[in-house]
Amino acid sequence: MDRRSFLKNSALGGTAAAATALAAPAYAQGKRTLTLVTTWGRGLAGVHDSAQYAADMITAMSDGDLTVEVKAAGELVGAFEVFDAVSSGQADMYHGVDYYFLGQHPALSFFSNVPFGMTFQEFNNWYYHQGGQELQDQVSEIFGLKTFATGNTGPQSGGWFRKEIHGPEDFQGLKFRMPGQGGLVLGKLGASVQNLPGSEVYQALSSGAIDGTEWIGPWADEKAGFQEITKIYYTAGFHESGPNLSLAMNRDVYDSLTPAQKQIVAQTAAASNIWTMSLFMANNASALQRLQASGVKIMEFPDSVWDAFGKASAEVIAEHMDDPLYAEIHDSYMSSMKSSADWIQRSEGTYTQQRNRVMAAM
Amino acid sequence: MDRRSFLKNSALGGTAAAATALAAPAYAQGKRTLTLVTTWGRGLAGVHDSAQYAADMITAMSDGDLTVEVKAAGELVGAFEVFDAVSSGQADMYHGVDYYFLGQHPALSFFSNVPFGMTFQEFNNWYYHQGGQELQDQVSEIFGLKTFATGNTGPQSGGWFRKEIHGPEDFQGLKFRMPGQGGLVLGKLGASVQNLPGSEVYQALSSGAIDGTEWIGPWADEKAGFQEITKIYYTAGFHESGPNLSLAMNRDVYDSLTPAQKQIVAQTAAASNIWTMSLFMANNASALQRLQASGVKIMEFPDSVWDAFGKASAEVIAEHMDDPLYAEIHDSYMSSMKSSADWIQRSEGTYTQQRNRVMAAM
Repeated sequence: MDRRSFLKNSALGGTAAAATALAAPAYAQGKRTLTLVTTWGRGLAGVHDSAQYAADMITAMSDGDLTVEVKAAGELVGAFEVFDAVSSGQADMYHGVDYYFLGQHPALSFFSNVPFGMTFQEFNNWYYHQGGQELQDQVSEIFGLKTFATGNTGPQSGGWFRKEIHGPEDFQGLKFRMPGQGGLVLGKLGASVQNLPGSEVYQALSSGAIDGTEWIGPWADEKAGFQEITKIYYTAGFHESGPNLSLAMNRDVYDSLTPAQKQIVAQTAAASNIWTMSLFMANNASALQRLQASGVKIMEFPDSVWDAFGKASAEVIAEHMDDPLYAEIHDSYMSSMKSSADWIQRSEGTYTQQRNRVMAAM
Repeated sequence: MDRRSFLKNSALGGTAAAATALAAPAYAQGKRTLTLVTTWGRGLAGVHDSAQYAADMITAMSDGDLTVEVKAAGELVGAFEVFDAVSSGQADMYHGVDYYFLGQHPALSFFSNVPFGMTFQEFNNWYYHQGGQELQDQVSEIFGLKTFATGNTGPQSGGWFRKEIHGPEDFQGLKFRMPGQGGLVLGKLGASVQNLPGSEVYQALSSGAIDGTEWIGPWADEKAGFQEITKIYYTAGFHESGPNLSLAMNRDVYDSLTPAQKQIVAQTAAASNIWTMSLFMANNASALQRLQASGVKIMEFPDSVWDAFGKASAEVIAEHMDDPLYAEIHDSYMSSMKSSADWIQRSEGTYTQQRNRVMAAM
């Protein structure tokens, strides 16, 4: 399949794939083993755990009919090869984050993370109840995939720097690791941006090949060991406010499942979504305390930097608006985010502000 | 079983129940129908949907071996009778909110909502990764139940009033509907508190039997029709910051399930948890806009009222600290909440504040 030609006709591609789905084959019989490749090195904190959770739950709920085997990055294919491997049928499923694959389709950013984008809760509102999942189906069908939201790292930290950031001009010439559209934003601020898989970041920072990196948050960052290299850490970041992880299945494999098995995959993904998000959030607080105790300086970007992030983010997100499917997804996403943000601010925002204020005084 | 005597010896009760579980019967064979009773009137927005979702997903994933039939409040037993019905084996499962059953055990508040308590994300951090679920097991075993978190309404609104609230003294003598420990807090402020099931609230407010009520949030409140009776609506409230809904199964029934079926119930509950929370949050923003357009005045409590809520909440929560199991759960809950709140403030709090500030200016 020439995916690039599909890309230029994404509406047509979606229709063709949908027609194929209607003529689904008879269910595959008997016990099967499915291979799940990932964008994560084996054991990477949180993200590998999330892939293993999905594999284990599908295996357990299908009562032996499906056994899902996890192949971490490099064990069958490389981290950035999983999308093509599952699209082509070389592997059955992948667990990863879709901003690694913006070259395949720029709209995958909305199902991973756009800069200045949704939080976890905002994403879930859109995904489960305001058309997000159906729009994801349209993108996935182009590539012969069926994809589910399956986890989230929570808001990612601004990252590790060798020098403090006092204004947007400090990004000029900075060699920084950041994938996805966030990296393009830093590029607009003059940074030299690199997109390395997680398993290669420590070495790059340590050797000086990069000046700084974002990774995930305090817990995963501590496990990666970046505090051994530099002591300057920015917590809140603009680039990944609630990055969604994907569980994608080869469409022919998905169509061969029984209705019960299809529901097992879908519900596993939803269960893994809440389990994974909570895993990161539960571990970040204590990890941050340990980092502080070990001498790491915890910083926040000044407003002038946030202003620059916001301006550049809007430019980056607008760059693909001539693609009709991208534009449709963009408009749906932005409308939902605005609505969710307003209610969350009024309800949870006001509540936590008042609770934290009152309890601090007691 | 004399539940009250178990209550006085909850550690012993838990041990006895665990021993029974070890001697679980052989798995029940063949196709079974399970009855799921609820604390909700049929069709009550969001909460009945959540119960139906759980029933449908267990049915679908078990491929016909389990069929879960929903019996709404009053169809088999009354709203407040579901806990006893499932504990005694009259019904197989219930879907409801456990603050209706604080008379059975006061620690059930931590698995529904304590005033000035956790948000949805804070609860999930504790529940899935910091011992919350295991502590819930200890309470449930006393009553012959196996319970799972299965949904959340998000932060509930302060509610509907006939007169504006200018200070804590305005609660003196107010006849207000609020269940759980939140109601006890309002009692300390001098209110005359009533605990009515949702299906009876409209009539009570309409007739003047009560002066005001909280229910859930804009979407469910609009569907309940309270805006037809009064136009004064407070959004953020202190009493239910992220009330968790429970899916509880009779312990003997649970023990009779196959390992795959047990996992289907557990993963359904987790999937329903994120689906239900998003359902409420996705619908609240547009509902609030409609309420405003229909002439409802959207209010926030002044700081003096929040201060009074906080002081009375601390008193109410402390009242059962002589119960060792309550005290253990309290300490675990509070420690986790403090840790989560700190990280969420630094990450998502800072991010959304900056994003909303920058985007409003663009």
